[in-house]
Amino acid sequence: MALKNETYTELETLLKKAYAVQAAMAVIEWDNETAAPKEAGELTSEMVGRLSGVYYEIMAGDDMGKLLKTCEKKQESQKNGQKDGSKASEKNMEELIKVRMVEEAKKERELLTCVPQEEFEEYTKLTSAAGKTWAKAKEQSDFSIFAPTLKKIIDFRKKLASYRQKDGQTIYEVMLGEFEESFPENKLDEFFDIIRKELVPFLDEIKKSGKAVDNSFLKGGYSEEKQRELAVMIAEYIGFDFDRGVLSVSAHPFTTSFHNKDVRMTTHYDDWADHSLFSVIHEGGHALYELGIDDRLTQTLLGQGASMAMHESQSRFVENMIGRSEAFWVPIYGKVQKLFPKQLGNVSLKEFTAAINRVEPGLIRTNADELTYSLHIMIRYELEKALMEEKIEVEDLEKVWADKYEEYLGIRPENAAEGVLQDIHWSQGSFGYFPSYALGSAFAAQIYEHMKEEIDVDSLLKEGKIGEVTDYLKEHIHRFGRLKDSRQILRDTTGEDFNPHYYVKYLKEKYGKLYGVSI
Amino acid sequence: MALKNETYTELETLLKKAYAVQAAMAVIEWDNETAAPKEAGELTSEMVGRLSGVYYEIMAGDDMGKLLKTCEKKQESQKNGQKDGSKASEKNMEELIKVRMVEEAKKERELLTCVPQEEFEEYTKLTSAAGKTWAKAKEQSDFSIFAPTLKKIIDFRKKLASYRQKDGQTIYEVMLGEFEESFPENKLDEFFDIIRKELVPFLDEIKKSGKAVDNSFLKGGYSEEKQRELAVMIAEYIGFDFDRGVLSVSAHPFTTSFHNKDVRMTTHYDDWADHSLFSVIHEGGHALYELGIDDRLTQTLLGQGASMAMHESQSRFVENMIGRSEAFWVPIYGKVQKLFPKQLGNVSLKEFTAAINRVEPGLIRTNADELTYSLHIMIRYELEKALMEEKIEVEDLEKVWADKYEEYLGIRPENAAEGVLQDIHWSQGSFGYFPSYALGSAFAAQIYEHMKEEIDVDSLLKEGKIGEVTDYLKEHIHRFGRLKDSRQILRDTTGEDFNPHYYVKYLKEKYGKLYGVSI
Repeated sequence: MALKNETYTELETLLKKAYAVQAAMAVIEWDNETAAPKEAGELTSEMVGRLSGVYYEIMAGDDMGKLLKTCEKKQESQKNGQKDGSKASEKNMEELIKVRMVEEAKKERELLTCVPQEEFEEYTKLTSAAGKTWAKAKEQSDFSIFAPTLKKIIDFRKKLASYRQKDGQTIYEVMLGEFEESFPENKLDEFFDIIRKELVPFLDEIKKSGKAVDNSFLKGGYSEEKQRELAVMIAEYIGFDFDRGVLSVSAHPFTTSFHNKDVRMTTHYDDWADHSLFSVIHEGGHALYELGIDDRLTQTLLGQGASMAMHESQSRFVENMIGRSEAFWVPIYGKVQKLFPKQLGNVSLKEFTAAINRVEPGLIRTNADELTYSLHIMIRYELEKALMEEKIEVEDLEKVWADKYEEYLGIRPENAAEGVLQDIHWSQGSFGYFPSYALGSAFAAQIYEHMKEEIDVDSLLKEGKIGEVTDYLKEHIHRFGRLKDSRQILRDTTGEDFNPHYYVKYLKEKYGKLYGVSI
Repeated sequence: MALKNETYTELETLLKKAYAVQAAMAVIEWDNETAAPKEAGELTSEMVGRLSGVYYEIMAGDDMGKLLKTCEKKQESQKNGQKDGSKASEKNMEELIKVRMVEEAKKERELLTCVPQEEFEEYTKLTSAAGKTWAKAKEQSDFSIFAPTLKKIIDFRKKLASYRQKDGQTIYEVMLGEFEESFPENKLDEFFDIIRKELVPFLDEIKKSGKAVDNSFLKGGYSEEKQRELAVMIAEYIGFDFDRGVLSVSAHPFTTSFHNKDVRMTTHYDDWADHSLFSVIHEGGHALYELGIDDRLTQTLLGQGASMAMHESQSRFVENMIGRSEAFWVPIYGKVQKLFPKQLGNVSLKEFTAAINRVEPGLIRTNADELTYSLHIMIRYELEKALMEEKIEVEDLEKVWADKYEEYLGIRPENAAEGVLQDIHWSQGSFGYFPSYALGSAFAAQIYEHMKEEIDVDSLLKEGKIGEVTDYLKEHIHRFGRLKDSRQILRDTTGEDFNPHYYVKYLKEKYGKLYGVSI
């Protein structure tokens, strides 16, 4: 007995309406970052606030409630009518979509409605004002300006999370679940334990190796115009379809999508040629994900990445596994040299590849190289966890932050701006978000390892057949959107559950080789 | 007894929500014209369709209905309680806003709900498909491809208008009222009669004068980069505030506004320097209107121009009365010459001013000069009226069009593409829209005549004090948004009702002088 199609069609129509409102907000956000005039902000925020109210009303409204209940009931009885507990993956696609659509809609509805409206509004005001306080504190490099606000945000955030806390869940796990539902906290503990045990000593080995990698030629005289030319060339090369996408400029690079025929990404140009270059390759990875989502899923709740971490796995894969490999540059490095003859004319491909993989422990996460990046995340994970478990106080945060940087990376911030105040996330109430970055890299490594067993990635890249590599990602990951969760995707793609050792192995092999460190 | 504020506040909140959805559609439309990738169109249309459904639901919904009824009732009893029939303009601003807000909301609601939903959807499909048919017909210059569709559109359009037809109204008057409510059809008949009687023979005189005005130096070698520089300079000069606005590029120049802190305009660059230049000045006039709307009105139904024609009056005023006057160029022509020394270095200000005012009867409305423009509109008015009154058949339209061009402008289109197929409007079902263009010019002339009695426009322009001229417009027109209708604005600003003779006088004086024709 299949779910009556009319009820389901009604639900999907209502969800698409909600999606249209959400996508409109995404367009406004994009416009805000790439085009809007300086003084538009306040009134446009009011406008977005009202749109988000409209979204809330559709998702939290009675119509949605009734449709979801009906659909769910029918799906229940359908399930009971089946002989065995056949898994979702065995059902046909359309049935699976229905089940997942209802699940995601329920989750979204719960997320919106579990918090009393007034509290949510108060919280929104708090975090909205916090942005300015944080910016001021960072500018003056004075943590004491931001600390009281941060304390309030944390208390509020904990209260909000408590509304959705289930038996046996910690508050932090609730927060983590907002970004990567399929990973319980103990899985993340394990993951970061491995990173701590393996990568901190490995980084020490590299430092001890004393090998210097020159990257000075990546800076200086790279005109914005030529960098733009390079950006377009590289975006096209990795498969970004300019008929279905836009590349623009914003203060901080990001990717957004309105549907699978309109995916936007930005970059930012500065003195270092590799900054914009790898921004484009990284955001290009996000963009390929969004462009690859199945037509059947786009403009629905399932028409987005499986999770933050899975999305990040795709950007990191394209940026690091592909984009920072020598093989990737074989077919195109000549063109890059022609664009910048003065800077790169005498730089060999080997030297260029080494330069774009240079390891250098630094204080700023967003400037970190591939190897040390995960340590920046690990520190934030440890701190967020300790804050939520009340094992440290906000007042001590600046010092603990500095201690951890000294312990793991061997460098100590001289001030709060290059330490605890560097990231905007906490001022926005984003706790539990950071781990996605590291998890994404680890997913990427696991996928990469398995992919190499199936196709000869290096040879394909050398032959300029990068499309066959990204097609693999589309086939196994992108097209499914949110139809599966991250762990299901990993299992279906690599044949096993998440295994963080691939990540450590990948990093050690790559950087052991580059720095002549035996592993 | 004033209207209870809570009910009114509720109404305004609901209206602002509707406005946010409408503004979101405007952002998407802007993005679509200036940034969106080629293949986005279809899915984005679906999205916009859903948003327009949301807008419909808010405006046509029960909540809105109840609030409007309550507000209206209270306003009624308030009116009855007043001693005399004191006019809206005598009430204080806030009370006036309330009254006008309810009026406009009712009108918008009626406009949305008077047509049965299915019919409206069918009509939308028809006009949406018609765009392609029209484009194909124009491309092949074959009216017979488009004629059957146009016939269907006209029949449908008449049917839709009939739902709102009041006693004694013609169908065409209903259509005209959608764009300029304060002008009944007989007023427009009078207006175009005067144009026909006065300007057609005047144009003949000019042609007979045999005076040739050279404008060849406005074409050739104007690089897009330099034109862009000029566009920004001129936009700034006329008072376009780049902190509250954006200038971009699109196929056809237009202006849009999300609120009075974010007004966007576009231009289009080609071989002729004056094309983009006067696009920017024209759109700049629209933009100044939107930027000048009072803070209290922005983001509400009253936060827009009083009517299409009044909006056009402001763009035409800035473009023609100001922008094509010699005085305007006195303080800045030197800078323009410096930007284009090769093209304009040896062109005197007098020659330049003559060139940008060159009269040349042509077949294409959008390329028309200031004098002949109104004749293009008059022809369309006559044809629309005759079509709606069933005095001509669609089948005969191509020939009648050509006959009229021959009669009034002395030139005959050689094919349908440069004749009846040149404008997109009818394919979109826009009947009654064209007259706004001519009416706007006539408003502008009347305002100009009166303004000159109050301030010395020419001297101010020569001294570079253009701000004092545009401030006058802001003070008398812009800030009121839709608080008053066009005729009220004309009366309040110029002390008399609409008087088309100012327009004829203005044109005859200006062009009589330029071409040495006595009037």
